[in-house]
Amino acid sequence: MLVVMGREATEEDIKRVVQAIEARGLAPHLMPGPTRTAIGITGNTEAVESSGLRSLPGVRDLIRVTKPYKLASREMRIDDSTIKLPQTTIGPKNFTIIAGPCSVEDEKTMHKISEYLVERGIRILRAGAFKPRTSPYSFQGKEHSGLKLLEELKKEYGLGITTELMDSTHAEALEEVADLIQIGTRNMQNFTLLKRVGQLNTPVLLKRGMSATLEEWLMAAEYILSGGNMQVAMCERGIRTFADHNRNTLDISVIPPLKRQSHLPVIVDPSHATGYRPYVKPMALASMAAGADGIIVEIHPQPEQASSDGAQSLNFEEFDDLLKFFQKMGPIFGKTID
Amino acid sequence: MLVVMGREATEEDIKRVVQAIEARGLAPHLMPGPTRTAIGITGNTEAVESSGLRSLPGVRDLIRVTKPYKLASREMRIDDSTIKLPQTTIGPKNFTIIAGPCSVEDEKTMHKISEYLVERGIRILRAGAFKPRTSPYSFQGKEHSGLKLLEELKKEYGLGITTELMDSTHAEALEEVADLIQIGTRNMQNFTLLKRVGQLNTPVLLKRGMSATLEEWLMAAEYILSGGNMQVAMCERGIRTFADHNRNTLDISVIPPLKRQSHLPVIVDPSHATGYRPYVKPMALASMAAGADGIIVEIHPQPEQASSDGAQSLNFEEFDDLLKFFQKMGPIFGKTID
Amino acid sequence: MLVVMGREATEEDIKRVVQAIEARGLAPHLMPGPTRTAIGITGNTEAVESSGLRSLPGVRDLIRVTKPYKLASREMRIDDSTIKLPQTTIGPKNFTIIAGPCSVEDEKTMHKISEYLVERGIRILRAGAFKPRTSPYSFQGKEHSGLKLLEELKKEYGLGITTELMDSTHAEALEEVADLIQIGTRNMQNFTLLKRVGQLNTPVLLKRGMSATLEEWLMAAEYILSGGNMQVAMCERGIRTFADHNRNTLDISVIPPLKRQSHLPVIVDPSHATGYRPYVKPMALASMAAGADGIIVEIHPQPEQASSDGAQSLNFEEFDDLLKFFQKMGPIFGKTID
Amino acid sequence: MLVVMGREATEEDIKRVVQAIEARGLAPHLMPGPTRTAIGITGNTEAVESSGLRSLPGVRDLIRVTKPYKLASREMRIDDSTIKLPQTTIGPKNFTIIAGPCSVEDEKTMHKISEYLVERGIRILRAGAFKPRTSPYSFQGKEHSGLKLLEELKKEYGLGITTELMDSTHAEALEEVADLIQIGTRNMQNFTLLKRVGQLNTPVLLKRGMSATLEEWLMAAEYILSGGNMQVAMCERGIRTFADHNRNTLDISVIPPLKRQSHLPVIVDPSHATGYRPYVKPMALASMAAGADGIIVEIHPQPEQASSDGAQSLNFEEFDDLLKFFQKMGPIFGKTID
Repeated sequence: MLVVMGREATEEDIKRVVQAIEARGLAPHLMPGPTRTAIGITGNTEAVESSGLRSLPGVRDLIRVTKPYKLASREMRIDDSTIKLPQTTIGPKNFTIIAGPCSVEDEKTMHKISEYLVERGIRILRAGAFKPRTSPYSFQGKEHSGLKLLEELKKEYGLGITTELMDSTHAEALEEVADLIQIGTRNMQNFTLLKRVGQLNTPVLLKRGMSATLEEWLMAAEYILSGGNMQVAMCERGIRTFADHNRNTLDISVIPPLKRQSHLPVIVDPSHATGYRPYVKPMALASMAAGADGIIVEIHPQPEQASSDGAQSLNFEEFDDLLKFFQKMGPIFGKTID
Repeated sequence: MLVVMGREATEEDIKRVVQAIEARGLAPHLMPGPTRTAIGITGNTEAVESSGLRSLPGVRDLIRVTKPYKLASREMRIDDSTIKLPQTTIGPKNFTIIAGPCSVEDEKTMHKISEYLVERGIRILRAGAFKPRTSPYSFQGKEHSGLKLLEELKKEYGLGITTELMDSTHAEALEEVADLIQIGTRNMQNFTLLKRVGQLNTPVLLKRGMSATLEEWLMAAEYILSGGNMQVAMCERGIRTFADHNRNTLDISVIPPLKRQSHLPVIVDPSHATGYRPYVKPMALASMAAGADGIIVEIHPQPEQASSDGAQSLNFEEFDDLLKFFQKMGPIFGKTID
Repeated sequence: MLVVMGREATEEDIKRVVQAIEARGLAPHLMPGPTRTAIGITGNTEAVESSGLRSLPGVRDLIRVTKPYKLASREMRIDDSTIKLPQTTIGPKNFTIIAGPCSVEDEKTMHKISEYLVERGIRILRAGAFKPRTSPYSFQGKEHSGLKLLEELKKEYGLGITTELMDSTHAEALEEVADLIQIGTRNMQNFTLLKRVGQLNTPVLLKRGMSATLEEWLMAAEYILSGGNMQVAMCERGIRTFADHNRNTLDISVIPPLKRQSHLPVIVDPSHATGYRPYVKPMALASMAAGADGIIVEIHPQPEQASSDGAQSLNFEEFDDLLKFFQKMGPIFGKTID
Repeated sequence: MLVVMGREATEEDIKRVVQAIEARGLAPHLMPGPTRTAIGITGNTEAVESSGLRSLPGVRDLIRVTKPYKLASREMRIDDSTIKLPQTTIGPKNFTIIAGPCSVEDEKTMHKISEYLVERGIRILRAGAFKPRTSPYSFQGKEHSGLKLLEELKKEYGLGITTELMDSTHAEALEEVADLIQIGTRNMQNFTLLKRVGQLNTPVLLKRGMSATLEEWLMAAEYILSGGNMQVAMCERGIRTFADHNRNTLDISVIPPLKRQSHLPVIVDPSHATGYRPYVKPMALASMAAGADGIIVEIHPQPEQASSDGAQSLNFEEFDDLLKFFQKMGPIFGKTID
C-alpha cells in the first residue's frame, strides 16, 4: 500500500501519517520525491483502506500495490531512483562506469589502475577482497589486507570503492571502505546477508542469481529495501541456459521489463557473463542501448597476469576504445558518461 | 579443407583445382572474395593434404578447417559475407531493416504498409503467407492468396519480399515471389527443408531454433551452403530459458561469438523474442550495438487489429521513432541504415 | 467440446449426432470407449451449447474442453488410450519394450538382433533408415535399402517395426513397412509432417522437442489426432537444460503431469537422453516407476561397432539384465512386460 | 592426491604419513575404509609425487585425483560412503525416508506427526524452524521456538531431526538439536555457511542449487569435506528449466552420474520439485529405481492447513501408500526401507 501525499503537505502532515501507520502495527517507508512525498506501507495492509488514513491532512491518495515486491515496484515510485555515492550518482541521467580488476591485485598494480581511472574520469573502482570461489582450493582473495589497500586508494585517489560482501561478519569492515557494497550472484538469496545490508547506510549493488526470475531478483532487493536501505542498484551478470557460446547468457532482454516493473537503476556486468575479452565491448554497448544505467567491467594493465579472470579483463587500450564508443552513444540515450 | 588461391590465379587455374578436387571424389565450393578466390572442400578430406593439390598452379595455401561446420566457418572465409538481393545488400556496411506485419493482412492494409515503407526508404517487406501455428485450430495464414498479394506489392512498390517456407512442396511457388526465404525456428533442423533451399538461388534467412546451440545453428546453415546456396543470413529470435519476463530470451550475446566463428551476416528479430511492443525498441537498438547487420521487425498501422501477434507490432509512429535512433547510431557502428 | 453418449445409445443415435455436428460446419471425432462412446467436436464451437445438440436421442452430456488441445486431453477421454499394433498393444496394462540399433545395420547384424529380440519375447524392433543428422557430412542412414531390410525382418521374424519419418515424400514407403512411425525431436513442430501422418492409418510415436513445453507437445499430438489418426504415443527423450552431466536431461518428471492432462500413452527413450550406456538402465527403471507405458532403447551385439550412437547402446547381456529388473518391477506397477 | 595404505599398515604407519603430509605444508584427510585406510591430500600437491611419501612404511600407492573435487570424488574413495546418525545409517544398503511438515507446525500437530512416524518405523523427522522465503513479508518460520519443540520431540520419540541452517550464527543452536543439518538450495554456494558446517560434527544434507551443475554441487560438498566434516549427503530437489509443468524439474537423471563421480549418498526431495501432491509418489518411486539412497518428503495430517507448502504435502493415507510401494521395490534394488 502506498500513501501519496499532496504537494502542499507539510512535514507535520507527513509525521502524522507515519505515526498513524505505526499505530496500526504496520511499517512506514518514507519515499521523498522531487515534488511530493510518498509513504510505502508494508505489513498486513488489508484493513488499511477502510481505516481513516485517507482522511488525514495532506494525504492525496492511497494506492494498492499489486506486485509481491512493494518498495521495489514502479507502482510505489513512478520516477527512476538515483543512488548517491560521495563520488557520483547512479541514475537516469548518468551512465556509470565501474572498473577495476576482478580481485585486489598487488599494490603497484592497484596504484597503476587507480591513476589510470582518475585520468579517464572514472569515479568508482571495483576489486574483490573476499572472493566467492567454486573450489575451496582456489585463491580466496586478499581479504582484510585487500580491504586495507582499497581504503588507501580511496583516500589517495578519491575513487569510490565497490567490493563484495560475502559474510555478515565482515559487514562493518566493508562499510568503512566501500561506497557501493556488492552482493554476489551466489548470495542473491542469502536472506541473512540481505537483511544485514538492509541495515547499512551504504548503497548496494545486487547481482542477479544465475537462475533468478525477475520477480525473485526484485524480491531480493525488497529484503534490502524493507530493512531501511533504499539505495539498491540491480546488476545483471548473465544467467544459466543451455547455450555454451559464452560462460553465461547475458540477459540484456531483462533490462526493459526491469525498468518497467521497478524504479531501481540497472548496472550490467559484461565481463563475468561473457568470460571472454573480445565480447565485452559489444555487450557493454548493447547494455547502454537497451536502457542500462551503467556497467561494471574488469580491466587490468596486463590481463594475462591477473590473479583471477584475466581472460575477460580489458587492457587499458581496449577500455579507452570502449569509452570512446560510450562517449559517442551517450547523447543519443540522454546519458552522461560518468 | 580450404584451398586459398593466390591473387594472380587465373580462371583457368581455378577450374583446374576444381577438377582436381572432383577427381578425388570430393565436393568443391567456390567462394569468390574481393581480392582472391578460395575453394572449400567437403567430403572425406583426410588424404587431401598429402595429395598433389598444393602444387597446382595458382594455389597459395591449403587450410584445415577445425570446426564441424566448414563453409559457414570464419576459417573458410575471413571477410564478412554479403547477401545480394535485387533491392539491397545485407552485410557489413549496411544495417538492413526488414519490416511488415506478422501475417499477410487484407489488401488495403498491405498497400498502406507498403507505401509507408517506401516513403521511409525501407526496402524489404516481411509478411507470412504460410504460418507455423502451435495449434491446428489457429489461423494458418492466407497461404497462396497471400503469396499472390505479396507478388503484386513487389511489382507495384519495388519492395523485396521476405516470407516463410514451411513445406518443400511450396519451394517453387515461394521462389517466384520471395527475395529472401525465411526458414522458421521450428524448422531449423528440418533437414529435408534445409536441403531443399540449398538447391534454390534465393537467399535464405535462417532463424535459430529455440534451443539451438551456436554450433547446431551453424550446422543448419551448413546444410544450405553445402547444397550450393551460399546466400544465408542468420536470424536470432530468442531462446528458451527459465526466464519468464519475455516470451523468449533474446540472445543478443550470441552475436559476437557468431561473428567470430562465421562470416555470415546476422539479423535480429526483436518482435517474436519479446512479444511485447514496448520492449522492441530497446532490443532493436541493443542488437545494432552488439554487432548485428539488421533487424526483422513487425509493424502494423493498427496493431490491435492485426490478424496475429498484434501485441508485439510497432505502429508507424513507434517505427519512425526507432528509425530516428538507428539513424543516429548507424555512423558510430559504420552502418548505413537500409 | 465433447458429446458424451449414454450407455444405451445406439449406432443410429451416434450417426445422428455426427450428422448434426457436421451440419453445423464442425468436425466430429469418434472416440469409442469400453462402455460408452464420446464424440469430440473441434472447430468454432461457441454456438454449440445453445444449439439443440444436447436434446438428441442418446446424448447424455455436453462437456466444454478447457485446454487448447482437445482430442489429446484427459477431459475428452477419461480412460487411458491403447494403441493397437498387429504385434502388441501399447497402453495401461502393458509395458512395451521397443529395442534395436540406432540405425539399420548390415544384414547379418540385423538378423542377429532380430533373433535375439524374438527369443526374449520383444515384439517391436527399432532401427532408423532415414537419420536426422546435425551435420550434412555425417552418415544419413541406409535410407530405402534400410527400409527394405526392415521389411524382410518383419516378415521373417514377425517383429513390429518402428522407424523414423523425416520427409512427407517418404510417408507412403514407410507406411508399408512401419507399424509405429516415429516423428523425431527436431520435427516435433514440423507441422507439414504432422498433418501428413495425421492422414495415415499407422500409429505414431511422437518424440518431444528438445525445448517443448508439455502443452506444445500435446498440441503437436493434436495436429495428428485432428487429422484423423487417433493412435499417438508420446515419447520423452530428454530436454535442453544447463546441466552437462548427460547429453540431455531426461525429464522423467513430465510423466505424471502428462498422464494427468492426457489419455495418451508415454514411452521413454533413455538412450538418446543419457548418451551413455551405464546410465540407461537406471533411467529405464525410473521411467516405469514414474508411470511410463514403455521404453524405446538402443541395443547392439557389439556397441563399439555400431554405425551410430554406440556409446549409448546396451549389449545383449546388459539388456538381459534390464529385462530381469523389469520383470520384477512389472507386477508392482500392474504392468506386463511386452 | 590420495595415499592408499596397505591392509597391513599400522596406526603408527598412518600417523607417520599424516605427519609427513603436514610437514610438506599440505592438508591430510583420513578416509578409513572397511579393509584399508586412505589419506586424501589437498593443497598444492604438485611436488608430492616426487617427494619421498611413496616410500614410507605401509604406503601402497599414490593416486592423482583428476577431478577438481577431491574428497568427494569416487577416485578418492571407491566404496559408497555411509553417514551415521544416532538413529540410523544413510548409505548403500538402506533407503532412508525423512518425513515431516515443511515448517515446524503447532505442538499438537507435531506430536501427531511424530507418533505417526514412529508407528511407521520412520526414523528421521524433517521440519523447518528457520525458513528461507522469497518474500521478506512471508512467514519466516517459528525460529528458536521451533528448534525447541524439535528438541522435545527428539527426546520424547527418539526421532532424528533434519532442519535447515540458514545463518552461521545459528550453527551452534542447530548442532544441539539436529542430527542432519540441511543446507538449502539458495545457500548451496554460500561459502561462508559451507565452511561453518565443515567444522561441525553433525552430518549435512546438501541441497543442489537451482542451476548448479554436478561439478559445482560436488565442489560445494568439497567445501564441507575439506573442512573436516566427512558426513555429507547430497540432495536433488529440482532444477530450473524452461519446463512449466512442475515447479522445478526434478533431475532424476543426475543420480547415475553423481554415483559414478562420487561416493556420497543421494537423497531426493520430490515434494519441493513437483510442488504438487499427486506427483510426489511417482517421483519418489522413480528416485529409488534410479539409484537414490532415500527421500525427504513432506507430510502433514491435514495438508490444506499446513502453514507452508500444503499443496505438496502428502497426507497420512498417501504416505502409507507410498511406503507400501517402497516395501515392494526395496528388495529389487537391495535396499532396506528405513
